[in-house]
Amino acid sequence: MAALATAAASASKRGPTLRNLLTLADVSVEGLQRLLTSAAEINRITPTKIRALVPPAPMDNWLNKKAIALLFSKRSTRTRVAAEVAIRRMGGSPVFLAPDDIQLGVNESLADTAQVLNQLVQAIFARVGPHSDIEALAANTTIPVINALSDLWHPTQVLADLLTIADSAARFNANASSTEQQISLGKKHLPPLTVAWVGDSTNVLHDMLVSFPRLGLKMRVATPKGYGTPEPVMARIRELGCADSIVFTHDPQEAVHGANVVATDTWISMGQEDEKAARLEAFKGYQVTEALCQAGGAEPNWQFLHCLPRKAEEVDDAVFYGPRSLVFREAHNRLPTIQAVFAAIFRPAFGVAQPHYEIKQKE
Amino acid sequence: MAALATAAASASKRGPTLRNLLTLADVSVEGLQRLLTSAAEINRITPTKIRALVPPAPMDNWLNKKAIALLFSKRSTRTRVAAEVAIRRMGGSPVFLAPDDIQLGVNESLADTAQVLNQLVQAIFARVGPHSDIEALAANTTIPVINALSDLWHPTQVLADLLTIADSAARFNANASSTEQQISLGKKHLPPLTVAWVGDSTNVLHDMLVSFPRLGLKMRVATPKGYGTPEPVMARIRELGCADSIVFTHDPQEAVHGANVVATDTWISMGQEDEKAARLEAFKGYQVTEALCQAGGAEPNWQFLHCLPRKAEEVDDAVFYGPRSLVFREAHNRLPTIQAVFAAIFRPAFGVAQPHYEIKQKE
Amino acid sequence: MAALATAAASASKRGPTLRNLLTLADVSVEGLQRLLTSAAEINRITPTKIRALVPPAPMDNWLNKKAIALLFSKRSTRTRVAAEVAIRRMGGSPVFLAPDDIQLGVNESLADTAQVLNQLVQAIFARVGPHSDIEALAANTTIPVINALSDLWHPTQVLADLLTIADSAARFNANASSTEQQISLGKKHLPPLTVAWVGDSTNVLHDMLVSFPRLGLKMRVATPKGYGTPEPVMARIRELGCADSIVFTHDPQEAVHGANVVATDTWISMGQEDEKAARLEAFKGYQVTEALCQAGGAEPNWQFLHCLPRKAEEVDDAVFYGPRSLVFREAHNRLPTIQAVFAAIFRPAFGVAQPHYEIKQKE
Repeated sequence: MAALATAAASASKRGPTLRNLLTLADVSVEGLQRLLTSAAEINRITPTKIRALVPPAPMDNWLNKKAIALLFSKRSTRTRVAAEVAIRRMGGSPVFLAPDDIQLGVNESLADTAQVLNQLVQAIFARVGPHSDIEALAANTTIPVINALSDLWHPTQVLADLLTIADSAARFNANASSTEQQISLGKKHLPPLTVAWVGDSTNVLHDMLVSFPRLGLKMRVATPKGYGTPEPVMARIRELGCADSIVFTHDPQEAVHGANVVATDTWISMGQEDEKAARLEAFKGYQVTEALCQAGGAEPNWQFLHCLPRKAEEVDDAVFYGPRSLVFREAHNRLPTIQAVFAAIFRPAFGVAQPHYEIKQKE
Repeated sequence: MAALATAAASASKRGPTLRNLLTLADVSVEGLQRLLTSAAEINRITPTKIRALVPPAPMDNWLNKKAIALLFSKRSTRTRVAAEVAIRRMGGSPVFLAPDDIQLGVNESLADTAQVLNQLVQAIFARVGPHSDIEALAANTTIPVINALSDLWHPTQVLADLLTIADSAARFNANASSTEQQISLGKKHLPPLTVAWVGDSTNVLHDMLVSFPRLGLKMRVATPKGYGTPEPVMARIRELGCADSIVFTHDPQEAVHGANVVATDTWISMGQEDEKAARLEAFKGYQVTEALCQAGGAEPNWQFLHCLPRKAEEVDDAVFYGPRSLVFREAHNRLPTIQAVFAAIFRPAFGVAQPHYEIKQKE
Repeated sequence: MAALATAAASASKRGPTLRNLLTLADVSVEGLQRLLTSAAEINRITPTKIRALVPPAPMDNWLNKKAIALLFSKRSTRTRVAAEVAIRRMGGSPVFLAPDDIQLGVNESLADTAQVLNQLVQAIFARVGPHSDIEALAANTTIPVINALSDLWHPTQVLADLLTIADSAARFNANASSTEQQISLGKKHLPPLTVAWVGDSTNVLHDMLVSFPRLGLKMRVATPKGYGTPEPVMARIRELGCADSIVFTHDPQEAVHGANVVATDTWISMGQEDEKAARLEAFKGYQVTEALCQAGGAEPNWQFLHCLPRKAEEVDDAVFYGPRSLVFREAHNRLPTIQAVFAAIFRPAFGVAQPHYEIKQKE
């Protein structure tokens, strides 16, 4: 974690929040690469055969006697299951606090709840509404706070997206020789790819925009007028020097031009149900389909990403369930990437009588 | 698991669903006997004294590093607690997804949710409404799916009922010499008993009807007109050759004639609250009482079963809390039987450096 | 547990409930001291540094293979998280049953639910409404029942309050020479302190009233007219000989006179929301502030306790977030005290091949 923490510190210039993961904008390129390498390694050693007994792994006890509060102010399947499983695999105790259990700011101020949890658990993994809530949790605690989703950012999802792109290198028929811009994920190397986003400017897109360009990926983003990327995110994009690698447009066809990957997300997030009619109207023409990608000139072997849950309006069945779809691999990769985050935070210090993870694996 | 799986395969003729437990109709006689033997053994080695430290048992790590989703679209106490405890005893991680956490088919299609869970956990233990939901879970996954209750079937409950009958052999003053039809449960042998069902044709009755006759038990079933056993269940009864061992009637007194065991269930299941008045009218005379059983000619030492929760309308206090009642033992037996199901599914393959369960216990 | 149990028995004269913790009134002075010593020791061996691996401790496996039902008919953060973490640290399995999972007395009688849980888990940790519910759980089970809060008593909270007072000995500038009345908590000794309560007569106050005087603390209690301590609690106070150490008044200034500790609780507990206007009126002048304590003549170094969650009406920000406030330490101490309760209940018997806890620690 030392290198990652240092890297995050230099990226974010926020000393006190080194230990937290609020957005990938706070994590350095080296930190991102270490997380992805670790996640790929977790995938490698994790058994896929259901009946096998699982050999001990070095990470098994890194969360021994540690409890992680899973603080969810919104419903979740993927993020929560992945986090619970990751924590349990490392010997820790997830404590799931559902929306009804702990109504942030209703029965008790958010700051008080944070200070209480700070006394009882070793980290907080929180899904909140406004991003200011996750910042308030971090400001009122000395334990690590991990953003499991806020209205602005969704860092753990985008780590899974990155791993999925790396996992699927073979699908891109990529020219692996342009090593200057390649991103290194474990043993795999990817050439510069172009990722198109067609849809709403959601928290998933935001974390892509502050991380993908720094790993050598180009982005082309189409959102309807009035649904553009908010200024706080744009500021981080500029600060990190990512702007030159991103094309913003209101034309879905222009966005998918030359794309190796096309990604989208729901048009109507939780809490936006009353805007449904207006949004369906605004996003007309934004459905991801073969026809759109052909008309726009996506690469012939373009692949599809979606963080789920999916509605038919933003992507049709042919794409979503078709051979281009990486969505269930993407769902799978929530688990090793979240586990890699916990591993980075709770990796035992050097000098402790505990084998270092990568060293052990290389024996 | 090999023998059980093979047996289940030959019983169900459904190769792809070998790993699942959707109804006892899919499990062979040999498979049922192995599950019951295993459950009886779990009861034997499980401590009952609260302060004792528990010695290690071979099963302790069979779910090591494995996560089981407990997917409950309906409220539950017994089934859920038994499953959580069983999984934890075997070193696994139950991930409880409550009705509000995961509204099947509301925010995401059932098929998509199934495919996502298929990526993150090692089995699904699901309580659903329509049985087609559990079939859809099985059809969209490659991991084991266990039916924790559907509108048609309730296999884990009926395994507990069978174990309870076997447990209670001494109560029946049974003639143990008619070995041809006896059922063998661990070290215990039962003569052919007659089990009467007086009440609604619920999922519990259905799994009894497809399993009890194959283990040498006779059944006598009274349901009101219009509340008979549905055709999909009748088809499985015929297919399995169980019909000759079952008497169907609309007369509760006829049903309890010669009964060693009298069983019933609620008349108004979850979701049927609006039918309450009509059902109370239809089931008049179906309350299980001493008077009914005496009038009908039940065996003098008849015993009572009920899956719980219980309402007073279907059985009076004198029977429910009286000396004939096996209901709390039956509740207890939810735990070892569910554990036996997980053991059967996750038993390490022969050749793995892991002692075989029964062999170890016989040392 | 033997000594504690015996002590509790002699204190409560209720043989059948020895194993339960329904109120501190049932626990002897020796039992209270053992619980506090154990909790202080747990604090000592529990790591505070987030990245350290935690060395094995004797208690680690005392709940091995044991499941504890956390039965909550009301929302909770502190109590539930502390209990889950305590149980997991000792190798046990908490099974959290939320208000919606298990509606006590709605779908099934409380007695039936109790008898079912008695078959499936090794203890019940229950937050209920009326105290009669927790008594009913204890009456219908043979496993330990721990009161996690009822309308009358809140024993685990008050254990945390006691530990916090002992923890904070240095803050009281206390004259440690008056050894006759000191309370011994681990290595720490406290002189007789005066604890003032200003506010509603809640379950927290009630357990203070039956325990603090027996440990050498004096109490001064101000409640508005009509909000006094109920007779069942007064009866236990008299029975335990605590009355002489308690001053009851309706004057907040009189209550804080000479106080070393000032404590309060919410004026409007869960379920009392419709009394809000009347209560705000009745409790006028009861807000804990510097001004109140100065006017009343509290000791200069008085310290503040509150069980949380807190509303501003009962204590102002200056006190609550100020240097006198022990509230977050108090929240922290929920964990070791609840763990000490489980340790007392599940401590392996002498003669078992298991090192005795205190002996091991003294090596």
